[in-house]
Amino acid sequence: MAAIAIIGHGVVGSGTVELFEKNKASIEKKIGRKVEIKKILDLREFPDSPYAHKFTKNFDDILNDSEIEVVAEVVGGKTFAYDYTKRLLESGKSVVTSNKELVATHGAELLAIAKKKNVNYLFEASVGGGIPIIRPLNKCLAGNSIEYIAGILNGTTNFILTKMIREQMDFNTALKMAQELGYAEADPTADVEGYDAQRKICILGSLAYGKHIYPENVHCEGITKIAAEDVLYAENAGYGIKLIGSVKQVGDKVSAIVCPRLVSRANLLSSVDDVYNGISVVGDGVGDTLFYGRGAGKLPTASAVVGDLIDALKHNERAVTIGWDDNDDADYVVSYKSVETSVYVRAKAEDADSLKSKLSELFGKLIFIERNGRPSDEIAFITPSFVESEIDEKLEILSKSMSVESKIRLL
Amino acid sequence: MAAIAIIGHGVVGSGTVELFEKNKASIEKKIGRKVEIKKILDLREFPDSPYAHKFTKNFDDILNDSEIEVVAEVVGGKTFAYDYTKRLLESGKSVVTSNKELVATHGAELLAIAKKKNVNYLFEASVGGGIPIIRPLNKCLAGNSIEYIAGILNGTTNFILTKMIREQMDFNTALKMAQELGYAEADPTADVEGYDAQRKICILGSLAYGKHIYPENVHCEGITKIAAEDVLYAENAGYGIKLIGSVKQVGDKVSAIVCPRLVSRANLLSSVDDVYNGISVVGDGVGDTLFYGRGAGKLPTASAVVGDLIDALKHNERAVTIGWDDNDDADYVVSYKSVETSVYVRAKAEDADSLKSKLSELFGKLIFIERNGRPSDEIAFITPSFVESEIDEKLEILSKSMSVESKIRLL
Repeated sequence: MAAIAIIGHGVVGSGTVELFEKNKASIEKKIGRKVEIKKILDLREFPDSPYAHKFTKNFDDILNDSEIEVVAEVVGGKTFAYDYTKRLLESGKSVVTSNKELVATHGAELLAIAKKKNVNYLFEASVGGGIPIIRPLNKCLAGNSIEYIAGILNGTTNFILTKMIREQMDFNTALKMAQELGYAEADPTADVEGYDAQRKICILGSLAYGKHIYPENVHCEGITKIAAEDVLYAENAGYGIKLIGSVKQVGDKVSAIVCPRLVSRANLLSSVDDVYNGISVVGDGVGDTLFYGRGAGKLPTASAVVGDLIDALKHNERAVTIGWDDNDDADYVVSYKSVETSVYVRAKAEDADSLKSKLSELFGKLIFIERNGRPSDEIAFITPSFVESEIDEKLEILSKSMSVESKIRLL
Repeated sequence: MAAIAIIGHGVVGSGTVELFEKNKASIEKKIGRKVEIKKILDLREFPDSPYAHKFTKNFDDILNDSEIEVVAEVVGGKTFAYDYTKRLLESGKSVVTSNKELVATHGAELLAIAKKKNVNYLFEASVGGGIPIIRPLNKCLAGNSIEYIAGILNGTTNFILTKMIREQMDFNTALKMAQELGYAEADPTADVEGYDAQRKICILGSLAYGKHIYPENVHCEGITKIAAEDVLYAENAGYGIKLIGSVKQVGDKVSAIVCPRLVSRANLLSSVDDVYNGISVVGDGVGDTLFYGRGAGKLPTASAVVGDLIDALKHNERAVTIGWDDNDDADYVVSYKSVETSVYVRAKAEDADSLKSKLSELFGKLIFIERNGRPSDEIAFITPSFVESEIDEKLEILSKSMSVESKIRLL
């Protein structure tokens, strides 16, 4: 009989218990042993739960129980989770987690402890909810040099953008709807400002390139400034707007950024709508791949947690090789200003059309975009690809005759 | 120093060597040891290959070399491959393969030998080329009961259908183009009649439900009978046409079938075009997921083979738990005639429109579809969902006044 414990009984934690109990018979067949959830740690009371007798408020009940082999940490955040995870791994227990913040911030350290102790620290649920992405990247695509990863990594913002595109809602109305449906929290900052996606792209990049990428080094722009006009112009030019986290190797460094992007309708990522996530991985052998599914939610995230629990229980006497090196190079992530990109620009100018020749002189072959009812003081265009600082310099030259309202990079 | 061997130096075999040598440094870092391709078995001569000194025509040179831990079998077919694989596994070597025919036909037996000998038999490359699907299904989604798998599993037929849909080509012209581009073989039977997809859905179904599904028990229809008219009607009703392999649990049995299907434009699978493959997996926890990428080709398939080589070398002293039970229940796959489905029908009748009321009487709420220039002796419609034998009975009633030209199931 194997014993496991779960730390946290919120959305993901309760989903983990539910899915685990539902599919217990097949899970036990896969593991080759009987298994039970022995303890659930939460500071709240759950007197009506059928598992009420398993609850504890004392972490030591789990840490000191030698029967418990694997612990699912689904409490989130860094405060308790960091301390608990460290102590569990040090004590020789495997830990599986959905905690992207913790993995993105302390992953290298925690993975090193797991390796030293010959236990597992698994985190399939930390990126893309239930979508298999960590193991595919780490194992199935291990024969590739990864050329590029670009993903819609946050379901809340994708829901909002989908509403803005399909139903011409403005940002605030769409956000309110997301909150009413329970997709966005009362304080939506981590989602709409891109911090959630930032953590996730750090995890994917660390795994793909073998060195820890820290969130504070990754430039991040959210979706709060996207206007209904931008959606219309993008649509007319054959693009959707998506919040994209991306990472790419540049020599022995990487470029990594989270920002809204115009995504061509020919790219499958532009069809990833609503609360779904989609992650595109390009490798030198495999070419382009896409992983798609529900990037959040109770049971989808629990699916990844339970998958990791099964894997850790199957490998109870050895560590699965997964991880990356720590990294004290503050310049490992190159400045986004030095990366080549095309951008979409929407600007205001007294007589906008009169600027076209000046703009074309500066940028070369520009694509000017129209929309129904475009006011005469508005202009929108897509530039060719330049290093971003150069684009900014060119726009600066025109700063007296034109004020830039929106600048969105292309994927 | 670890040693591996490769059996077969065709498209996939030479791609495996190329990708392995290209990314050798990072592969060795992942394995934690130096590794070399020690032998390549092929009956042909490759005097100009930089690896000419590694070639052998004698299987025993690999079988009896105790340094060789893992062998990639990429020769295809059943004749040699079956005998070689059995003897290699029996001798305690791990085998990785792209050979869908062998896995679909003898998978249960070969996996049992691997388990007995505590070695690995891995086959990520056998389905979906480079797309990670075997490991995600077996590990990441292990906490789910799999409700449904439906995939575009053959790139050649998907290319042909894409040409028929996008460019209104007829089947024969599109097939000829696929052959000229090297996507289809001179004898395209295995692709266009659906046998290739049939093997692949057997592998996915065996893995998902734990019992071997044999190809001969899976009903299979190819795409040779799809007419340009069908493509137009489908398009007008909001559907694309795709060759779909699907499998689903039905009590303690499964339903499994390969056939062309109308796929709604709202379903991401309908956007999987050209030679790409897409596999949709629905689980009770994760909900719906999609895995997308190049389903065939030299380097994409090599990507999966090399990923498996790395995994087998990392697990050189123990078997990765993967597999399914053998199955002597000839009725394990229920008859497709007993499964509920909606169908699209195109028929000829002297005065087609006069049949509409009779048809509606028989089927209930039918959707009649139009196309530009529809002749008066042609009618096309989509039925509600019925058990398929019941649909056939209803159509039979009208067999004197109407001849069915096309009957295509909906996804």
